[in-house]
Amino acid sequence: MNIGLIGLGKMGNNMRARLKNAGIDVVGYDTNPAVSDVPDLKALAAALPAPRIVWVMVPAGAITDGVVHDLAEVLDEGDLIIDGGNSKFTEDFKHSEFLAPKGIQFMDAGVSGGVWGLENGYGLMVGGTAENVERAMPVFDALRPEGPRAEGFVHVGEVGAGHYAKMVHNGIEYGIMQSYAEGYELLDAKKDIIKDVTGTFKAWQRGTVVRSWLLELLVRALEADPEFHDIQGYVEDSGEGRWTLEEAIENAVPMPAISASIFARFVSRQEDSPSMKAVAALRNQFGGHAVKELD
Amino acid sequence: MNIGLIGLGKMGNNMRARLKNAGIDVVGYDTNPAVSDVPDLKALAAALPAPRIVWVMVPAGAITDGVVHDLAEVLDEGDLIIDGGNSKFTEDFKHSEFLAPKGIQFMDAGVSGGVWGLENGYGLMVGGTAENVERAMPVFDALRPEGPRAEGFVHVGEVGAGHYAKMVHNGIEYGIMQSYAEGYELLDAKKDIIKDVTGTFKAWQRGTVVRSWLLELLVRALEADPEFHDIQGYVEDSGEGRWTLEEAIENAVPMPAISASIFARFVSRQEDSPSMKAVAALRNQFGGHAVKELD
Amino acid sequence: MNIGLIGLGKMGNNMRARLKNAGIDVVGYDTNPAVSDVPDLKALAAALPAPRIVWVMVPAGAITDGVVHDLAEVLDEGDLIIDGGNSKFTEDFKHSEFLAPKGIQFMDAGVSGGVWGLENGYGLMVGGTAENVERAMPVFDALRPEGPRAEGFVHVGEVGAGHYAKMVHNGIEYGIMQSYAEGYELLDAKKDIIKDVTGTFKAWQRGTVVRSWLLELLVRALEADPEFHDIQGYVEDSGEGRWTLEEAIENAVPMPAISASIFARFVSRQEDSPSMKAVAALRNQFGGHAVKELD
Amino acid sequence: MNIGLIGLGKMGNNMRARLKNAGIDVVGYDTNPAVSDVPDLKALAAALPAPRIVWVMVPAGAITDGVVHDLAEVLDEGDLIIDGGNSKFTEDFKHSEFLAPKGIQFMDAGVSGGVWGLENGYGLMVGGTAENVERAMPVFDALRPEGPRAEGFVHVGEVGAGHYAKMVHNGIEYGIMQSYAEGYELLDAKKDIIKDVTGTFKAWQRGTVVRSWLLELLVRALEADPEFHDIQGYVEDSGEGRWTLEEAIENAVPMPAISASIFARFVSRQEDSPSMKAVAALRNQFGGHAVKELD
Repeated sequence: MNIGLIGLGKMGNNMRARLKNAGIDVVGYDTNPAVSDVPDLKALAAALPAPRIVWVMVPAGAITDGVVHDLAEVLDEGDLIIDGGNSKFTEDFKHSEFLAPKGIQFMDAGVSGGVWGLENGYGLMVGGTAENVERAMPVFDALRPEGPRAEGFVHVGEVGAGHYAKMVHNGIEYGIMQSYAEGYELLDAKKDIIKDVTGTFKAWQRGTVVRSWLLELLVRALEADPEFHDIQGYVEDSGEGRWTLEEAIENAVPMPAISASIFARFVSRQEDSPSMKAVAALRNQFGGHAVKELD
Repeated sequence: MNIGLIGLGKMGNNMRARLKNAGIDVVGYDTNPAVSDVPDLKALAAALPAPRIVWVMVPAGAITDGVVHDLAEVLDEGDLIIDGGNSKFTEDFKHSEFLAPKGIQFMDAGVSGGVWGLENGYGLMVGGTAENVERAMPVFDALRPEGPRAEGFVHVGEVGAGHYAKMVHNGIEYGIMQSYAEGYELLDAKKDIIKDVTGTFKAWQRGTVVRSWLLELLVRALEADPEFHDIQGYVEDSGEGRWTLEEAIENAVPMPAISASIFARFVSRQEDSPSMKAVAALRNQFGGHAVKELD
Repeated sequence: MNIGLIGLGKMGNNMRARLKNAGIDVVGYDTNPAVSDVPDLKALAAALPAPRIVWVMVPAGAITDGVVHDLAEVLDEGDLIIDGGNSKFTEDFKHSEFLAPKGIQFMDAGVSGGVWGLENGYGLMVGGTAENVERAMPVFDALRPEGPRAEGFVHVGEVGAGHYAKMVHNGIEYGIMQSYAEGYELLDAKKDIIKDVTGTFKAWQRGTVVRSWLLELLVRALEADPEFHDIQGYVEDSGEGRWTLEEAIENAVPMPAISASIFARFVSRQEDSPSMKAVAALRNQFGGHAVKELD
Repeated sequence: MNIGLIGLGKMGNNMRARLKNAGIDVVGYDTNPAVSDVPDLKALAAALPAPRIVWVMVPAGAITDGVVHDLAEVLDEGDLIIDGGNSKFTEDFKHSEFLAPKGIQFMDAGVSGGVWGLENGYGLMVGGTAENVERAMPVFDALRPEGPRAEGFVHVGEVGAGHYAKMVHNGIEYGIMQSYAEGYELLDAKKDIIKDVTGTFKAWQRGTVVRSWLLELLVRALEADPEFHDIQGYVEDSGEGRWTLEEAIENAVPMPAISASIFARFVSRQEDSPSMKAVAALRNQFGGHAVKELD
């Protein structure tokens, strides 16, 4: 089994290692020549036996789009592109349509697992035809975790379905992280009662209803830096949480907890809050309440 | 008509003026001798014809509680205490029960209007017996706004009901302020499209669905300091918003917008967010996402 | 002053009356011949002196889009189309670009006031060039409420800005309505304490911080049907609330209260909640908690 | 090692079995004589060697309170009562103070694991003195899951701390469940794209960021009843979620996601929503929007 892998960053590099460990021949390409196996996409195509499978693992948006278009120049009819990045599902529709006239097949794969995937395997959610799923199954089997296939891999539906599922996965992830975080903040605020915050989270790892992998990571983080002295409460958000919320709005699905998680991140990145300036100004207007003035 | 008025701060002082303007004889007492008409509560009682009416307008909690207990020492059977502060309704139950054996009557009055009340009159929500309401009606009529009595005054129910209604009024107020503030923040964020944020709020004052007194105050604030350059997004909360939310929880009433408003204030006062530290730490753990380190 | 008015439904019909009252000659067109002044758009164009102003007041989306395209066939260079419906601001960009090569001018006008606009006037937020604003000012002056122009009319910015401001206006409106509604629900749940729910809202109309036009409408509704016996808690949402939330997401603006208002409407329309089925199923799984089974 | 166990319901009965399996002699008491080992508490005390340990596993509130008071009549100085139920932490303060003059020791133990605890062990969070913790450690070791003690047991702090930690645990649990549920609802709403909802959740069990025990239970539930056809979206809430939120309010800790989870449960139990009736009535008032009338 041979595969081309485009993008050898944090995720791609680990995936290359896991694929190789499973006995799959990987030709990797990256814009950074220091880590790339080939000088360009043309060389990548030349290095793979036809019909080829090429896995794209680059940042979503313009970069993924560019790679798909560039690949269309060097691949042949019958080749298969798998977008394993965090693309929006609507991009998959576009890419699939763009490639169809050339006879190039397309699949999308949502990939979860982060930096731990090399060791634990990656949870995979894929979209595409049954034929393409079967064709790429050795790749999926190499990447997914040990254990029953159905517990780490799913063929969700047609093209786009894999990224859709991954998008929702990330929305849920936001909500779960926020839930632990809110509980943490309350425990942390009550140190007169809670004498061992880290120990409490640690003890939740077995037997409790809230045990999870994220909880284990939270314990790791707390053990490394109790009370998070060295870390700022500043949280980025990737597109997938936002898209989940947009889809919820579009489909009239109430999403109060996940939206709260996203908004909390927005606030975390503000130096000062325009909303809260407005509220402070209003209270000052009607009640003469003091406002904190900036120097 | 005579009344004793305890507490001559921002609110009490204005109320004294409004009562006097309406021809009511006011004996005011304050711990600050510079503004007080009498040296102590005993002198206040002596200066009022029996049966007396005494309006308490001091900070809720221990101070109001202390005043009620002190008044019980100097008042007589048949006198009437009206707590016009922002006491929790459960305090009214306690005060009413405490005073009953002494034959001292008790009423609670929720008062809205802030620093504008002197000019506009105060919205009043009162709790107590029909007899006491009638007895104090000249006072209520002096304090409430011009216009039909029922549009600025309500006898909500027994003792405690007035403060309960005021508590909910303030919960609603939080939600309305937050709504304008969120809209403001979005308009302010889109200055490429919205060329006149202040003008937009100003134009909403007539004809639109969102016109309100708070909107007028927001326009005043924006005209005084467009974009709130000199004001910090730091917002206190009085007890009443919190009590509203506690009552919602106790009565299984969903309150997503008002709770959001309260939480936004909590966040506004944090230098850094423990929750968001936890989320940042988690993202770093699973995805190797960079965290912002504190120096 | 002459104007063509397309769409003579609930809003358009009232606007025609208000324009006529102000001495403006209105030629109205509607697909319903019973209310239309002319048989078709061609006749509408013929009935107006050039350069023409045509106000479009039809449902947003495909219908507005169709009307704009149809108008392009019958109008001439120098004519001006004003879209007064609830179009998304991005539609304005499209319409403006579509009309530009034909020399037809375009403006957008956000209109607030509902069925009360005939009597009270309409709050107007417009987007377009200063020239076009000036040209249509007699129309705006006729439609807007009495009083200073700046308190019922604003030129928000270029094309699209009017609808953008109206969109945010509606988002705020959702939050304000939700705030009153949550307060209502709590007061209604505490009838052991609150003996006069309607009277309480009624009394908030003067002097209080929460006084507003929406409050006055709530009092009207409660007086007509105390406790809303005859009305179902089923609430539609127009596109504007959703677009506001989408814009918030797009611009990283936290919008917890307004989003809560929108989600509450989504829930109100569900016969049963898939989310809550999932939570009930989970509780049953881990705790053996009883679930309510459907027959 | 001997222990008295009061309350042999769903939880207590399983705990008795787990304790016996670990070689601990259990004397169980229940008001249901069919499952009780002794006829009354006096007999329970008589059957245990002094100093005794008695574990109380009955419904929180009045019943637990009654049992503690009854036990005070039959136990002796030096005996130890452990409240393993879902009591509010403030009850622990009261019970500890009540028992202190009698020389009876008190501890609280938060217990998580539900009906699965018999097999998996129970996550334990305890509050009390170090001496009492050490004394009861064989009991805790029998109940807690296999593996390192610190991953299934924690001594959180003084009396009350165990229940405090369990309370927060349950608040977090609400948020996590709500997060999965919101994701489920969106996937379920998009069946045109998501062809295998159950399979998607199933595939998240290994490798993904959202893997957890609750996810495994959700998969079990979905496999038993895909789309939850037989289950109603009606969800009770125990006190602990509400207390968590009350503590958040009391301590000014923002808790938007957990509060959203609790409010969603409140709504799920309403036949119709008073809030949404109010919003529907308002829309009808200003816009003439149709309302759904009840027959």
